[in-house]
Amino acid sequence: MSNSRSNPVEGSETAKTAKKRTVSLSVVRRMPRYYRYLNNLLEGDITRISSRELARRTGLTASQIRQDLNCFGGFGQQGYGYDVDKLYHEIGNIIGVEKSYDAILIGCGNLGRAVAIHLLSQPSAAFRLRAAFDRNPMLIGANIYGLQVFDPEELAEYCAEYAPKAAFLCLPTENAKSVVDVLYASGVRYYWNFTHYDISLEHPDTTVENVHLTDSLLTLCYHITVEENQGSDNT
Amino acid sequence: MSNSRSNPVEGSETAKTAKKRTVSLSVVRRMPRYYRYLNNLLEGDITRISSRELARRTGLTASQIRQDLNCFGGFGQQGYGYDVDKLYHEIGNIIGVEKSYDAILIGCGNLGRAVAIHLLSQPSAAFRLRAAFDRNPMLIGANIYGLQVFDPEELAEYCAEYAPKAAFLCLPTENAKSVVDVLYASGVRYYWNFTHYDISLEHPDTTVENVHLTDSLLTLCYHITVEENQGSDNT
Repeated sequence: MSNSRSNPVEGSETAKTAKKRTVSLSVVRRMPRYYRYLNNLLEGDITRISSRELARRTGLTASQIRQDLNCFGGFGQQGYGYDVDKLYHEIGNIIGVEKSYDAILIGCGNLGRAVAIHLLSQPSAAFRLRAAFDRNPMLIGANIYGLQVFDPEELAEYCAEYAPKAAFLCLPTENAKSVVDVLYASGVRYYWNFTHYDISLEHPDTTVENVHLTDSLLTLCYHITVEENQGSDNT
Repeated sequence: MSNSRSNPVEGSETAKTAKKRTVSLSVVRRMPRYYRYLNNLLEGDITRISSRELARRTGLTASQIRQDLNCFGGFGQQGYGYDVDKLYHEIGNIIGVEKSYDAILIGCGNLGRAVAIHLLSQPSAAFRLRAAFDRNPMLIGANIYGLQVFDPEELAEYCAEYAPKAAFLCLPTENAKSVVDVLYASGVRYYWNFTHYDISLEHPDTTVENVHLTDSLLTLCYHITVEENQGSDNT
């Protein structure tokens, strides 16, 4: 992997993209994990931790942890370790957990509801769910966990008025394109995407967190298949 | 990354672990993605595709695709490209999509139901959901989408009788440890884990696919925060 940190502008990247890249995506992806583990430590009244002990608990290596945290300035002290509360809040600030960005939910089936409950039940969930959209006439106008459900026909109008920062897509894949077209035209650039519609391929200037549940399940399936085949090889 | 493919047994790894490692986890993770895209191609009656065109559609590079598929023997022909139907079925075989491993669902809240519907609605979903467990007395004995819900007290007995291959954990994190203890003692080694309980840290001989929805959401939050901070830097 090239070290874009030491040479932030290279090739055809724009300065903005390069700046975003200064912390690698794999480090970024571990930040929420640290945040979660640190929260567990706080709940267990642990106020100080060494990178070695943090490594044991997270399953990472101590050197990786030090490297990761150094990307953001480093918060540890040699011989002392990390101040758990301070590190927890620093990482929270880096992620922006207190920002409460406005988000809307598209699709109020079981998955959409699970997502809604998940968000509404967490005091600091980084996003504030403002409205939901579902084409099911039985749901339109209803109230799901305090969240009003609108007709997707009203999506453009809603976005024009409230300018939500992010959309959470929990609708069937086949309906995703037409909804994203509206959202994108309305200025929504951040997506938490549970569908298989490839938003960033169509709209490269969006930021998309994909959750591909089927891919995850098939990865588990692959591991079983490999082991089963090995088992039959050995007999 | 070391090339364990050319030197499968090294260090303290067992031969079994090393063999598993011959295909890197990142390649494995891309297999379901190829499978999904190839399925889309078949649905669009596309029978042949070059690695370049597949790259354009998947957002990967052509050389990465060729390398990935070479890990499994390579299925392309120079100047012809890939036979979509053949490649789709080969990858399906590698993953084991037709195996239908028996699985049980733990937790029948919205997320558990979403997972159940997802699996039951797909003709070839690699896993066959056989039973569900939930401690909610209102649900015990009920039937969710054809799936019978049992009391978690019956879990050990059920596993002893039916030996499910995998468990899908959609219960609250705080209840996960006690349930996994029972499942592990009953021989279940494969987990699709939506909780934040770290199964493989406690039981290193399990194979776990974790789906950390909060981590994913906080990653999205981080990206917004970075862009917002850049925006305010520029003003």
